Amino acid sequence: MKIAVLGSGAWGTALSMVLCDNGHDVTLWSHSPEKAAQLRSSRCNPLLPKVTLPEALRYADDLKCVEDADAVVFATPSFAVRSTGRTAAPHLRQDAVIVSVSKGIEKGSNCRMSEILVQETEGKCKVVALSGPSHAEEVSVRMPTGCVAAHQEEAVARTVQDVFMNDYFRIYTSPDIVGVELAAALKNVVALSCGVIAGMGYGDNTRALLMTRAMAEMGRLGERMGGSRLTFAGLAGMGDLIVTCTSMHSRNFRAGILIGQGRTAREAMDEVGAVVEGYYAAESVCQLSEKVGVEMPICRCAYDVLYHEKQTESVVRELMTRAKKQEN
Amino acid sequence: MKIAVLGSGAWGTALSMVLCDNGHDVTLWSHSPEKAAQLRSSRCNPLLPKVTLPEALRYADDLKCVEDADAVVFATPSFAVRSTGRTAAPHLRQDAVIVSVSKGIEKGSNCRMSEILVQETEGKCKVVALSGPSHAEEVSVRMPTGCVAAHQEEAVARTVQDVFMNDYFRIYTSPDIVGVELAAALKNVVALSCGVIAGMGYGDNTRALLMTRAMAEMGRLGERMGGSRLTFAGLAGMGDLIVTCTSMHSRNFRAGILIGQGRTAREAMDEVGAVVEGYYAAESVCQLSEKVGVEMPICRCAYDVLYHEKQTESVVRELMTRAKKQEN
Repeated sequence: MKIAVLGSGAWGTALSMVLCDNGHDVTLWSHSPEKAAQLRSSRCNPLLPKVTLPEALRYADDLKCVEDADAVVFATPSFAVRSTGRTAAPHLRQDAVIVSVSKGIEKGSNCRMSEILVQETEGKCKVVALSGPSHAEEVSVRMPTGCVAAHQEEAVARTVQDVFMNDYFRIYTSPDIVGVELAAALKNVVALSCGVIAGMGYGDNTRALLMTRAMAEMGRLGERMGGSRLTFAGLAGMGDLIVTCTSMHSRNFRAGILIGQGRTAREAMDEVGAVVEGYYAAESVCQLSEKVGVEMPICRCAYDVLYHEKQTESVVRELMTRAKKQEN
Repeated sequence: MKIAVLGSGAWGTALSMVLCDNGHDVTLWSHSPEKAAQLRSSRCNPLLPKVTLPEALRYADDLKCVEDADAVVFATPSFAVRSTGRTAAPHLRQDAVIVSVSKGIEKGSNCRMSEILVQETEGKCKVVALSGPSHAEEVSVRMPTGCVAAHQEEAVARTVQDVFMNDYFRIYTSPDIVGVELAAALKNVVALSCGVIAGMGYGDNTRALLMTRAMAEMGRLGERMGGSRLTFAGLAGMGDLIVTCTSMHSRNFRAGILIGQGRTAREAMDEVGAVVEGYYAAESVCQLSEKVGVEMPICRCAYDVLYHEKQTESVVRELMTRAKKQEN
C-alpha cells in the first residue's frame, strides 16, 4: 500500500517505521524542506536518536506527496491539523483513508481532530482516529505496544488495523471515535492535574484517586457527547493516561509539578518551554461540559487553578469535602 | 459509635486512626496478646513507624471485644478471614455492620471475603466491602485518599460511608459488591504480570497495554459473575492497580520482576519472603473463568508462567499475535 505520513515529529517518524516494517511504500512529509533534506541525508531523526530510519522510507516536503496515497496519516501538532488538511485536500484521492493521530480539541470551535479533517476534505475521505499508550521512543525500538483504531464503520477501522498491526504493534478496533478522540485530548488535563498533586507533595493514593475520578467524569462527558464510558477505561483513555502520568517526558505532567510547587500557569509553561496541551484542553473541556450540562468538578478545579490562579490547597479541600456520592 | 477493628497490620491500624479522627470509640484487636501489649505500651506500630497511635484507641487480644460493637472491621490477612469470622460470630451483635477490607479469593472454594463472612455469621450481619487505592502509610499521615464501600443495599453502604468519610478519606458507595471484591482480589494478578514485564525489560507502553487489557478481561469476568464492568475501571479496580503497579512496596510487583528476570515462581516467592497474593489469585481466576466460560488470555498466560514455567518471551509473543479484535 502507498502511504503518506504528514508530520516528521517523533510520532510520525515512529509510525513510518512501523509501516515500513509492514512492507508498505511510505513517504514521510516534513513541514520544511530543510527538515526533509536532513532526514534524507542523515537517516536519523534527532527526536529518536537511537534509531536509523529504514532504507525504504522516502521523504517529501510538498503536500502533493499525498496524490497517489491509499492512506494518509496526519501526525502534525494539533494546531496544524486544519491548515495541513486544507492544503492537502485538493491532492487527496477520493478513496484514500485518512488516519488522524494528533490529540487535541480545537480552540474556539471545540472540534475533534477527525471533525476538522472531515470538514477540510469536504467529506470525500473517511477519517479514522488512532490512539493509545505509545511513547514514540519505545515503538521505534519495537517494544510491544497497543492502540485503538476508531471509526463508526467497522470495515474502515479494520482497514487501519490491517495496515498498522504487527507482532509488536497491536491494534484494536472501536466504533467509538467520539470517545477515543475526547479521551485522548482530555487526558492531558488529568496529566497536568496529577503533576500539580505531585508538586504539592501528595502521594500515590491521591494521584490514583484523581486519575480514577477524573476519567469517570470525562467518561460522563463522553457519554453525553455520544461516546461510551468504557472507551475512557480503555487504551485511548486510562491506558494513555497511565503512560503520561508516570513519565517525566510529559510536558503536561512537568508543568503541573511546577504549578503544584507554587508557580503560576504562565510561569510553568514558560519554564517547560513548549506547548502544554492540557492547559488549552482544560478550557475546552469546561466549555463543553457547561454547554452539554455535565458536572465535571475536577476539570473545573483544574481550570480555576490554571486560569484564575485559585489556590491549589483550597481546591484539594473543596474536592475532598464535596457531598457524599455513589461511585458510578 | 463503638467499632472493633480486627487485625493490627498496617491497614487495620491506619483505619483505626481514621475512625478515631472521626470521633468513634475504637478497639484494635491483635491476634496475639504480645502484639496487643506492645501496641498499648508503645503506642507505635512498627509497620507505620512515623506515627503515634491516638490516645483514645483501645487494644484487645480477645474476640469478645466485638460484643458491644456497632461496626466490626475485618482487616486480617485474607487466609485468616474465615477462622476469625467463625470465632467472632457468637459474640457479634445482630445489628452490627461488618466491614471487610481484606482482599482475596479463598483457595478451593473461590469465595469472596464477604461471602465467607456471611457464611460464618450465618447471615445475621450485613457485610460491606471497603476497597480502593490506599497505601496505609499515606492514610496514617492523612494524605487525601478515596475508597469505595459496596453493598447491595444502598442504605447499608451509606452507613459505612458515614462512619469512615472525612476530609482526607473520601468514600463513594457502590451497589456492586461482586465487582468491587473481584477487582480488588484479581488486580494482584495484573500487578504480578506488570512486574514480569518490567523484569523482562519492557517499557511503559507495554505495561499500560497490559494493565488496560487485563482490567478489560477482568471486567468481562466480573460482568459474567453479576458485577459491572465500570467497577473495574473504578477505585477498587484500575485505581488500586495504579497504586500497586507503581510501587516497589508491592510484593506482587516485586515477585513479578524476579520472574521476568528468569527466576521460577517458587524462587521468586522465596526471595520476596512473604505471601504473594497474585500467585494464588491467578489460579482462582483461571478456575473461575473456565467455570463460567469467559476467555481471559492474560490471566491464562500468567497462570501458565507461574504454575507451568512457560517461557515469558513466548507468552508475550502469543498475546501480541492473537487474532484481531475489537476493543470492547
